[in-house]
Amino acid sequence: MKTARLHGREDLRIEDIPEPTVGPGQVKLRNAYVGVCGSDVHLYLNPEASPIDLFSPHPVTGAHLPQPMGHEFSGTVVEVGPDVEGIAVGDRGAVFPIAYSCGECVACRRGAPTSCRLMASLGANADGGGMAEYVTVSASQFHRVPESVDLQTAALVEPMAVAWHGAARSRAGADDVVLIAGAGPIGIGAWYAFRARGVRDVLVSEPSPERRQKIAALGATVIDPTTEDLHAIVADRTDGDGVDVFYDAAGVPAALATGLAELAPGGRVVLQSPHEHGFEIQPSALMMGETELIGAVGYTAEEFDEVIARMEAGDYDTTGWVEEMALDDVVTAIDTLRSGAGTKITLRVGDA
Amino acid sequence: MKTARLHGREDLRIEDIPEPTVGPGQVKLRNAYVGVCGSDVHLYLNPEASPIDLFSPHPVTGAHLPQPMGHEFSGTVVEVGPDVEGIAVGDRGAVFPIAYSCGECVACRRGAPTSCRLMASLGANADGGGMAEYVTVSASQFHRVPESVDLQTAALVEPMAVAWHGAARSRAGADDVVLIAGAGPIGIGAWYAFRARGVRDVLVSEPSPERRQKIAALGATVIDPTTEDLHAIVADRTDGDGVDVFYDAAGVPAALATGLAELAPGGRVVLQSPHEHGFEIQPSALMMGETELIGAVGYTAEEFDEVIARMEAGDYDTTGWVEEMALDDVVTAIDTLRSGAGTKITLRVGDA
Repeated sequence: MKTARLHGREDLRIEDIPEPTVGPGQVKLRNAYVGVCGSDVHLYLNPEASPIDLFSPHPVTGAHLPQPMGHEFSGTVVEVGPDVEGIAVGDRGAVFPIAYSCGECVACRRGAPTSCRLMASLGANADGGGMAEYVTVSASQFHRVPESVDLQTAALVEPMAVAWHGAARSRAGADDVVLIAGAGPIGIGAWYAFRARGVRDVLVSEPSPERRQKIAALGATVIDPTTEDLHAIVADRTDGDGVDVFYDAAGVPAALATGLAELAPGGRVVLQSPHEHGFEIQPSALMMGETELIGAVGYTAEEFDEVIARMEAGDYDTTGWVEEMALDDVVTAIDTLRSGAGTKITLRVGDA
Repeated sequence: MKTARLHGREDLRIEDIPEPTVGPGQVKLRNAYVGVCGSDVHLYLNPEASPIDLFSPHPVTGAHLPQPMGHEFSGTVVEVGPDVEGIAVGDRGAVFPIAYSCGECVACRRGAPTSCRLMASLGANADGGGMAEYVTVSASQFHRVPESVDLQTAALVEPMAVAWHGAARSRAGADDVVLIAGAGPIGIGAWYAFRARGVRDVLVSEPSPERRQKIAALGATVIDPTTEDLHAIVADRTDGDGVDVFYDAAGVPAALATGLAELAPGGRVVLQSPHEHGFEIQPSALMMGETELIGAVGYTAEEFDEVIARMEAGDYDTTGWVEEMALDDVVTAIDTLRSGAGTKITLRVGDA
């Protein structure tokens, strides 16, 4: 089968490898679409930076590079292994990419499998990934999507679940005003998630005209922080109180500083985006404001299903911000994202 | 009546002023004990730094300096004003020092009256304070204590409520391990609060031998971070996971850095102590660890009653760490705390 397999730093090869064989408790999928994530870009540029060595066998799964990339993907069941119930050939779904979590460490105990210290993920250190024509996964990793959800949208379940999880960690509710910095895929996902939570008012700050235009086309209220008076806009919309939640999907110091400055007393900041550098906080100001900074990463299987339910309800519109490219063009897709162009690129793997 | 009245920067005078007159809805107290708080020290040294100008009439209460200091205090009811029910002469209690909060601002709406932007507190910008023989307060500010709670302990309700509130904001529970940095009055209060929450293991880090000795005498497990291997101790007690909650009652960068380093995935940091300077965080590390930094300040009336209930249950032992001095010696008390000596000083105001 065709795959895009990562061998090492900036060494991603389109090649032909044997199809995987379905085992007990597994299903085999014909993959349809796979998203290219910011973390895929980092993995491509610097696979040595992974917290678990990807060049040696994973302590549990035994998997190591080379490996098909891709952990945001959808597909159709083509074979059902022994001891699997409730899944049939032809079922369409999204894949929960965590192939192994220990269930015992402190992260697993608090229900955060994506933070497990022995976590193995498809597309990195479990066998297989989305950037291959076929993959085998545990039945529990397969999350069926209903007929109304197309397979390109289903490939977005994973990144949308990231944003859904971060929005949940903010505890934002109907009375709140939220400011999102950054209208990349996670910022867009957060915008959908906060709306699904019934948040009164969601503002999006984004300096890129292209990204502003895309999220505005979905119906968002957008602010250009480089030319508009964000402080005045926030004051106007919140009666001078400031925002209840600032969601950092930008990962740049200026945006985080602005978010902290515009926060109401008791406000929460969701740190959802990696930053290249440290950032100076004023602990006394956080104390006096009863501010909360809340790190957010990953998701749970339940959050996957919550996102799928909202997709079924028709919440997620992919118009304008989700591009399609062929699997063969994966390096072009990575280069596009590195250059800061594009928003979300999904690669068409099969013929779905 | 005798009072210690603040006139301006480092100008605190023992003087004689008229007794206050009880009005409708108020009770008059003969004050018993008043604690000297770190914020009193700051107020004495720099009354110009208050967010609300203390030299002009407060917009609602009209109060301004000079004013009796003291917001941590207890007393006995000597007169009950018109329209007060359920309080009798001879009742003993602690005073909730917030004399005014607007009830409408974002802080008030989220149940944080101590963060109200128009907040007026006894001992600063409402008429009266604990450092006077008598005070009149709204009936709702008077929190009765049972017979078993002496009036010196009752004067600690306020600072213990600060720590109680911070412990509550940490959401620490029975399965958690907590590390407290700093064994001053708030650190001690946090130690009591976390124990009351049923926390499995509470460790206290404190560089001062005198303060270590005092909290150890109460039964705490103490660590000297300057000579002991705190990391090894935490690892040993948490099976290598790290602590679930770090409570910053120290306000020094080294302690906060240590707390962050010793935190388990998903751990919470309570920022309960003012810091003199900024502090550099790594947003990416907070994100990947799903760490939360939680500012905490003040308390609610309900938290006052929760502390009083634990005092009635016998939780709070004042042995060793609570000193008594006379009201006349207030400046000596302030200088003692400025020098870093002492832990909690309560001034005896009346003859209770």
